[in-house]
Amino acid sequence: MTELRKDPIIDNWVIISTERGRRPLDYKIKTGEKKKDSCVFCEGNEGETPPEIFAFRKKGTRENSPGWKVRVVSNKYPALKMEEKEAALEKAGMFWKMDGLGVHEVIIETPHHHKDFDNLSIDSIVLILKTYQQRYLDLSKDKRIKYILIFKNYGIDGGASLEHPHSQLIGTPIIPQRIKEELKGAKEYFDLNGRCIFCDCIKQEVKSKDRLIKETEKYVAISPFAARFPFETWILPK
Amino acid sequence: MTELRKDPIIDNWVIISTERGRRPLDYKIKTGEKKKDSCVFCEGNEGETPPEIFAFRKKGTRENSPGWKVRVVSNKYPALKMEEKEAALEKAGMFWKMDGLGVHEVIIETPHHHKDFDNLSIDSIVLILKTYQQRYLDLSKDKRIKYILIFKNYGIDGGASLEHPHSQLIGTPIIPQRIKEELKGAKEYFDLNGRCIFCDCIKQEVKSKDRLIKETEKYVAISPFAARFPFETWILPK
Repeated sequence: MTELRKDPIIDNWVIISTERGRRPLDYKIKTGEKKKDSCVFCEGNEGETPPEIFAFRKKGTRENSPGWKVRVVSNKYPALKMEEKEAALEKAGMFWKMDGLGVHEVIIETPHHHKDFDNLSIDSIVLILKTYQQRYLDLSKDKRIKYILIFKNYGIDGGASLEHPHSQLIGTPIIPQRIKEELKGAKEYFDLNGRCIFCDCIKQEVKSKDRLIKETEKYVAISPFAARFPFETWILPK
Repeated sequence: MTELRKDPIIDNWVIISTERGRRPLDYKIKTGEKKKDSCVFCEGNEGETPPEIFAFRKKGTRENSPGWKVRVVSNKYPALKMEEKEAALEKAGMFWKMDGLGVHEVIIETPHHHKDFDNLSIDSIVLILKTYQQRYLDLSKDKRIKYILIFKNYGIDGGASLEHPHSQLIGTPIIPQRIKEELKGAKEYFDLNGRCIFCDCIKQEVKSKDRLIKETEKYVAISPFAARFPFETWILPK
């Protein structure tokens, strides 16, 4: 089966081709085996990272020392950095540029090098999500930050450069193009239909069950109609 | 140095961060060493591919037999397929879809498994480019095809699944979103300034030489101002 599907929110078509998955592969897929046993993100090596911004810790332990459960530090090799000024547009001939003002943080998800997300307890995962929330709310107060993205690269094929379980937060002085398109698409749908496009999506997916992964009291997890890659999953609040 | 740069043509900002390149890497980068010595794309195995669509051949050799220099066949695992009908929009609840009508071809660049692009003679490369041109012109006649993309994935990290030197051609029944944005951006620039944005880019890059890679009588090669990845290169006709 091969068909084109339009993303319901933005004006983007995706080729859905089940036959492509059956093609042979000359190259070997690498396993996720880890090479190291400890690293700068491990418990005991707190002095080797930039200072702690936030942490969930065992009672009585001091910051930048062992005893933490989840720990947030600045990215040592940041894509963006905060400085004491406003982001100003600057012209370079016919081009426009801007200082790379923003934040780039690393959320170290566990003190243990080998405890990947799928090996963590529910309680540990709750702490990671609460950390995301804390950092999001705190950074939202800075008016220079227009957008916050929290993401997790897993393995070298996922863009990770370090093995230790971690996620990242990036706060940018502009709203990314795709997000602007989503906002625009959602607004246009609302203006046309008088209804929220995400609510309509949820209604259709829950009814048809074709792409419904999980439904709970407050959330649904779906595989979107115009998924851009295998296993793309959206978690939406009801 | 970290700064944000706006793509001059579309409304997209890119983070340019030289510090990111210095970050350590736990994972080993794989070499491009080939595992096989021959495959379905090699000379002598013509019967194992779909039938030949086009080829540059030595005089007196028959199609689907040895003696070719560059050879084009349908992709055996196509993302899109042509059928005897028009691409029609279809509704699936609140979603829109369309038959995956189009073409997906493989350009086998050389009969030799180990002759990568950088090992080919200028004459061989000219034949590959002429093949691109032939297929492009031929497929342009089909009104159902709205856009043709010719691309080359190299190595597993580049998205290739087969080792043998090859490129691909895809013809789609819709114009991809990014191309629509480029057309829109270029038109808006022209309406505003009365000049072509690509000509203005070339003028600035040739003058400043900051991002000029090569200039010939008819072409320039530049690294674009808002490059999205290292070594992104644009070849533009003057």
